[in-house]
Amino acid sequence: MLLALDKRGSLYDQIARAIRVEILEGRIAAGSKLPSTRTLAIALGVSRKSVLQAYDLLCAEELAIAREGSGTRVGKVGSSTRISTRTRMVPTSLYALRARSLPSITLAGAHISCRPIYDLHYGEPLVDPALFHSWRRKLAAAALRAGPTYPLAGGYLPLRRAIAEYLGRRRGIVCDAADILVVGGTQQALTLIERVLLNPGDDVVVEDPHYQLTLHSLLAHGARVTSVRTDAEGLVVQELPRRETRLLLVTPSHQFPSGVAMTLTRRLELLRWAARTGSWIFEDDYDTEFHSRARPLPALRSLDLADRVLYVGTFSKSLFPSLRLGFIVCPKSLRDDLYRAKLLDDIGSATMEQAALGAFIQSGMFEKHLRKSAKELVNRRRAIVAALQRLAGSHVEIGPHDAGMHFIVWFRHLAFDRLDAFIERARSLGLGLYPVHPYYRTRPTRPGLLVGYAGLSVSQLRTAVELFARCLESE
Amino acid sequence: MLLALDKRGSLYDQIARAIRVEILEGRIAAGSKLPSTRTLAIALGVSRKSVLQAYDLLCAEELAIAREGSGTRVGKVGSSTRISTRTRMVPTSLYALRARSLPSITLAGAHISCRPIYDLHYGEPLVDPALFHSWRRKLAAAALRAGPTYPLAGGYLPLRRAIAEYLGRRRGIVCDAADILVVGGTQQALTLIERVLLNPGDDVVVEDPHYQLTLHSLLAHGARVTSVRTDAEGLVVQELPRRETRLLLVTPSHQFPSGVAMTLTRRLELLRWAARTGSWIFEDDYDTEFHSRARPLPALRSLDLADRVLYVGTFSKSLFPSLRLGFIVCPKSLRDDLYRAKLLDDIGSATMEQAALGAFIQSGMFEKHLRKSAKELVNRRRAIVAALQRLAGSHVEIGPHDAGMHFIVWFRHLAFDRLDAFIERARSLGLGLYPVHPYYRTRPTRPGLLVGYAGLSVSQLRTAVELFARCLESE
Repeated sequence: MLLALDKRGSLYDQIARAIRVEILEGRIAAGSKLPSTRTLAIALGVSRKSVLQAYDLLCAEELAIAREGSGTRVGKVGSSTRISTRTRMVPTSLYALRARSLPSITLAGAHISCRPIYDLHYGEPLVDPALFHSWRRKLAAAALRAGPTYPLAGGYLPLRRAIAEYLGRRRGIVCDAADILVVGGTQQALTLIERVLLNPGDDVVVEDPHYQLTLHSLLAHGARVTSVRTDAEGLVVQELPRRETRLLLVTPSHQFPSGVAMTLTRRLELLRWAARTGSWIFEDDYDTEFHSRARPLPALRSLDLADRVLYVGTFSKSLFPSLRLGFIVCPKSLRDDLYRAKLLDDIGSATMEQAALGAFIQSGMFEKHLRKSAKELVNRRRAIVAALQRLAGSHVEIGPHDAGMHFIVWFRHLAFDRLDAFIERARSLGLGLYPVHPYYRTRPTRPGLLVGYAGLSVSQLRTAVELFARCLESE
Repeated sequence: MLLALDKRGSLYDQIARAIRVEILEGRIAAGSKLPSTRTLAIALGVSRKSVLQAYDLLCAEELAIAREGSGTRVGKVGSSTRISTRTRMVPTSLYALRARSLPSITLAGAHISCRPIYDLHYGEPLVDPALFHSWRRKLAAAALRAGPTYPLAGGYLPLRRAIAEYLGRRRGIVCDAADILVVGGTQQALTLIERVLLNPGDDVVVEDPHYQLTLHSLLAHGARVTSVRTDAEGLVVQELPRRETRLLLVTPSHQFPSGVAMTLTRRLELLRWAARTGSWIFEDDYDTEFHSRARPLPALRSLDLADRVLYVGTFSKSLFPSLRLGFIVCPKSLRDDLYRAKLLDDIGSATMEQAALGAFIQSGMFEKHLRKSAKELVNRRRAIVAALQRLAGSHVEIGPHDAGMHFIVWFRHLAFDRLDAFIERARSLGLGLYPVHPYYRTRPTRPGLLVGYAGLSVSQLRTAVELFARCLESE
C-alpha cells in the first residue's frame, strides 16, 4: 500500500485520510486486511502511535474493523465514485448564468492589497474612532440584553421603534414600528422587493446614471431593465413609460452618482405617474443624512398619498459599511409579503447588532454622530472643491456637490481615449481615481471621475488635488 | 381651513403634516394664501410659535413660499394623487403568491407573549451565561479590529480560515478558507444554493420527515419537491429517483426530526447515486457538534470523491440562534457562482460578528464551549429520557436520542383525533408540547411529539415529564 500524505493537519489524520481514499476508490477491497501498524509505521517513517490513532479513527468511522488478534480489516463498505474527472460544464440556473455575464465590481475596501495612498474611491467611509468606541459599548451591552433566541423576521422591535421615531423626526415620514422591515442593507432590500414584485421578464426602470450593484441584482433576477435619463432637476419624469412599470428605482435626495436633488415639482409628478400607472417606487435614500441644507426636500414617502413608495434607508453610509443594516418602510399592502420573503431568505438579521443600533439611536448618540459627521464632511467637501477650483478650474467642471460623500468631476478637454492612461498615471503617483462612465447606460459626452472624499482628511485631500493637477499638466 | 392633527411627534410637525396633506390633495390651490399664523394659532388652540415653525418647515420643503409683508402662500406644486382608496388585490410575483400559500411557522422565541413555563419547543437554545460573557468580550474587541469598510462577499478571511481548520480537526473535511462561503445561517445557505442551482420547476428531493422552513423555501422558489422516506438507517437511498435530481437535501449526522444517524453504507450508496445521476447533495450538518459518540460518522463531504456535496454548517445550534452565521463548504465548480449570489443578495455578512466568531474559534473557546454544552446536553437528555421511561414508559416510545437537542416521543395508544386536546390540556398546566406530524409529508401512523429539551434544566425537565404523565393519566 503506497500512501501519499497531504501534510494537512495532524499526522494521524493524514494517514487516515490517505487510507480512506484508498478504500473509497476501491483499491483496498472490503474485508481485506490493512498492513500491521508496525509495518505501515516503518514504511511511512512515522511513529507506530500515529498509525494506531489513524486506525482507531477509521474504526470509529466504521470504515475499518479491528479484531483482537487478527489486526484491522476494511469494513464492509462499497467504494464511492470519482466522476468529476470527466470535466464538464456545470449546469446551473438561469440566475447563475445571468449573474456570470455581469462585469465584476470592486467595492471600497475589498481591494486591500494594492490601495493607492490617496484613494478617492466612492464608498470609503468617514472613519471616526470615537464612533467605534461608543459603538463598542453599545454592542457589549446588547450582547447581554438581546437574548439568544431566533430573531423576529421583521426585526428587533426596539430598533424598529427607534427607526420609526427617527424617520418621523428627521424625514417627516409617518410610520409605525410594524411598517419597518429590518434588512441587511440596501442590497438585501432590493433582493426582497424583487422577489415580491418581479417575475423574470417584468419591466423595471432605473435612473441613468445609477448604482451598478442595483442594476446587476435586477439583471440577475431576470428583470427587463430600461433606463430614463436625469437632468439638473433629477429624473425626467415625462420620459417614463406611460404603461405600468412594475418597479422604478430612484435616488431623489441625492441622485447617484450625479449628485442632483430631485425638485419638488418632479417629485410630485413622479408620484402622480406612479398612482396613475399603478407602478411601485423604490426610494433609495442612501445618504440624505449628510445634506448641507437645514432640511432636505421631503421624501417621496412623506408626499405619497397612494401608498406606492417603498422607502429604503441604510446605515452603511451614516455609520459604517461593515455594519450591514438597513430597512424598508413597507407599503401596507406589501408588508406581509416582504416579511415572508425575509423569513424565507435568512430567517431574520442578527439580533445583537440590531439591539446595539436601537440603543444607539434611542440614546441620541446616532444623531449626535450625524451632526458631527455632516460638519466634517462639509469641511472635506469645501477643501477638495476649493483646491480643484484653484488648481484645476480651467480643466474640469464640478458636478452638484451640496450633499453626501461624493461628486462628479467632468474633464473639459480630455478625450475619452486618454482617460485610462490618465488614471494610470495618477495611480503611479499614489492617487486613486475612478471613471464615472461605467455608471451610465448612455455614455456621457465627456469623460468624468466619480470622486469619493469621505475617506481622506482635509490635508490629504489637498495633496490629492495637487497630484491631480500634476497629472493634468502633463496632458 | 379645518385641520385634523394626528398627535404624532411635535406639534409643529403635526401642523405641517396636516397642511401638507391639504396641499397634496389639492384642497388648497397653488399660489393661494395660507391663514395668518395668528389666525391659525387661535383656530387650533396652539401657540403662534408652533404655527410659525410649521410654516418654516413647509417653506424649507418648498411646499410653501413666505414673502415679506404678504404672508405665506402655497408653492407652485401640483397635487399628489390618492388612488389606493380603490381597494384592489395587489398583484405580486409568482414567488410572493407561492409564499402566501405556505402555512405560517412559529420559531422558538418568536412567540414571546404566551410562552408556557415548561416549554419543550425545539430550537430553544441551551443558555449559558458564561458564553455570553466571553462572547461579549470577543465582540467588543472585534468592534475595534474588524474595520469599517465593506465586507468581502465570501466572508471575513480570518473566520473562513478558522472554520476550515475547525472542520479539518473535527469533521475530517479537507478544505481551504477559499472554499468557505460565510452566510447568515442555514436558511440563507439554501437561498443561495437555490438561486445557483434551481430554476422554477426543477426537481428537488427532501427527506421525509424534514425541517419545515427548508421545504417552504424550496416551494416558494418554485421547485418541484418530492420526498423520500427515511428508516432506521436514514434516507432510503434505493427509493431515490433514477434520473438526475437537481438537489437532494439530507441531514445524515442527525436526521431532522427523527434523530436517526445515516449508516456508513447508506452514505456511500448516496454518494454513488449522486455521482451516477449528476445530482447535488445539500448536507445539512446542523447539530453534529452535540453527538454522544466520540467521533460521529464521517460527513458526506469527507467521503465524496466526485465533488457533489454542498456541506452546510451553522452556529445557530452550537452557539445561539440570534447570531445568524453559518457557512457553505462549496464544491469548486460552484464556488464562484455561490459567491456572486451572496454578493448580489446582500453584499456580505456583517464583519464584526464574523471577526468575533473567528477569534472565538481560534482561541479554543468555541471547542471548550462545545465540550461543556455537549456534557450538559447529555445530562438533560438522560434526565428527561429516564423520567419518561419511568413515568410514561407504557404509554410512549422514545425515538433515537443519542445526539443533538431533540427527539421524538411516539404515543402508543393515543388516537390522532385526541392529540389537539391533549396538547391543549398540557398547555393549561404550563407545559408546551408540539406535534411532530407537521414535519412529515406522509403522515406517520401514530401521533407523536417533537421534544426540544435544551432550554430547560434537569429539574425543570423532570417537572415537565411529571406534568406530561398527569396528562396521560387523565386520557
